[in-house]
Amino acid sequence: MIIPPLPPTDDPDEIERRLEAMSLRYAIDTQRSIRRVTSAPVSDYLITRLIELSLQAPTGSFGQNWQFVVVRDQKSKQALGDQYKRAWKLYGSIGHKLADRSPDPAQMNKILKSVEWQIDNFASIPALIVACLEGGHGRVPFVPSPPIANSGHYGSIYPSVQNLLLGARAVGLGASLITLPLWSQMYARRLLGLPITVEPCAIVAVGWPIGHYGNKPRKPVQDVVHFERFRGAN
Amino acid sequence: MIIPPLPPTDDPDEIERRLEAMSLRYAIDTQRSIRRVTSAPVSDYLITRLIELSLQAPTGSFGQNWQFVVVRDQKSKQALGDQYKRAWKLYGSIGHKLADRSPDPAQMNKILKSVEWQIDNFASIPALIVACLEGGHGRVPFVPSPPIANSGHYGSIYPSVQNLLLGARAVGLGASLITLPLWSQMYARRLLGLPITVEPCAIVAVGWPIGHYGNKPRKPVQDVVHFERFRGAN
Repeated sequence: MIIPPLPPTDDPDEIERRLEAMSLRYAIDTQRSIRRVTSAPVSDYLITRLIELSLQAPTGSFGQNWQFVVVRDQKSKQALGDQYKRAWKLYGSIGHKLADRSPDPAQMNKILKSVEWQIDNFASIPALIVACLEGGHGRVPFVPSPPIANSGHYGSIYPSVQNLLLGARAVGLGASLITLPLWSQMYARRLLGLPITVEPCAIVAVGWPIGHYGNKPRKPVQDVVHFERFRGAN
Repeated sequence: MIIPPLPPTDDPDEIERRLEAMSLRYAIDTQRSIRRVTSAPVSDYLITRLIELSLQAPTGSFGQNWQFVVVRDQKSKQALGDQYKRAWKLYGSIGHKLADRSPDPAQMNKILKSVEWQIDNFASIPALIVACLEGGHGRVPFVPSPPIANSGHYGSIYPSVQNLLLGARAVGLGASLITLPLWSQMYARRLLGLPITVEPCAIVAVGWPIGHYGNKPRKPVQDVVHFERFRGAN
């Protein structure tokens, strides 16, 4: 299934129309990482509207402790792109080796190629939305954190990120979720002027797609659903 | 805004109709934690269908390393509920203190009451969906993990959890995202027969709502959006 792209827009009415016209099911089914995007601008209005959808997601302990930094400055994007390239030197070579051994090497190599396109063109992506968490892992002061607190911590940002990805899908923006440019959180903190209490967690890179939305290969649900106890457990 | 609940259903056609009928925007805007649910059954079919929507979310490094354990057994639910109660003894008392000092104590106390309802009625919730990650933090062998790997790790499960919550919203199920019953991951692992390589990350508790969907209080988007650099940074 190949879905032709919608034309770029920054018209508020048209944006609302697109968010309203797409069914939840269709948005979920056809949302996928689109890394190849044009350098055509994405308006502040549109980005802010998508972040507004993000804020509808739940946060742990009702904290609403999210922050979003929108990066468009060429130098900042290049700096993050350099970090991405550095991290990819390590992970990418492993990725290529794993791809050859994966059940679908052609598909994996296609993905790796699109990642490499993104790295090579990082500074020309119209906007990088850096999703951050404020407050650190132990937001309840003086109480030791069990390991699950780590999950709960990131559970306060990624539901919002998914809303952002779905919103981008509905308006026709290409979007992808990446973490490798934040390989050095300290470097990202300095670049974005984040206080020590604000942790950069992930980047959603957005732009009008060169690629297209459509189905994506997924494991059958039966492989990952278990009733009562994990299959094979005794 | 109060939205009257949809009647329970386990009819596959009706389920698809509801997923198709609701716009993405409406689903995102009206999805919120619903903790008070009836004990009326939620079919395996419906739960599996919702997990299928989860699987459309992205995962880090294309890992698709998610697993979902559906818990309905009274004893298992009670056991997890006891863990929840234990964790709440600590966090709840702090929550109440923080609520009194929050900008909207009435709202916070309402939420705390619904959490306490959930704890008291945990074993009668029709189904607990335990979202798990397989493979641990360092899925790339022999490469040291930078701190961002921690974020990337949970970034492979919470987007799928958000799809699940939105799907539940669209079909009219009440759902809430919780982590405290997994306070002891070791205990949960034993209970659910999870291998050491499978980490229980979060629970989505689902049932047909006693409460209702509707708007929820949120910070204005301007408070959390920053352009280029964090506001106040120099």
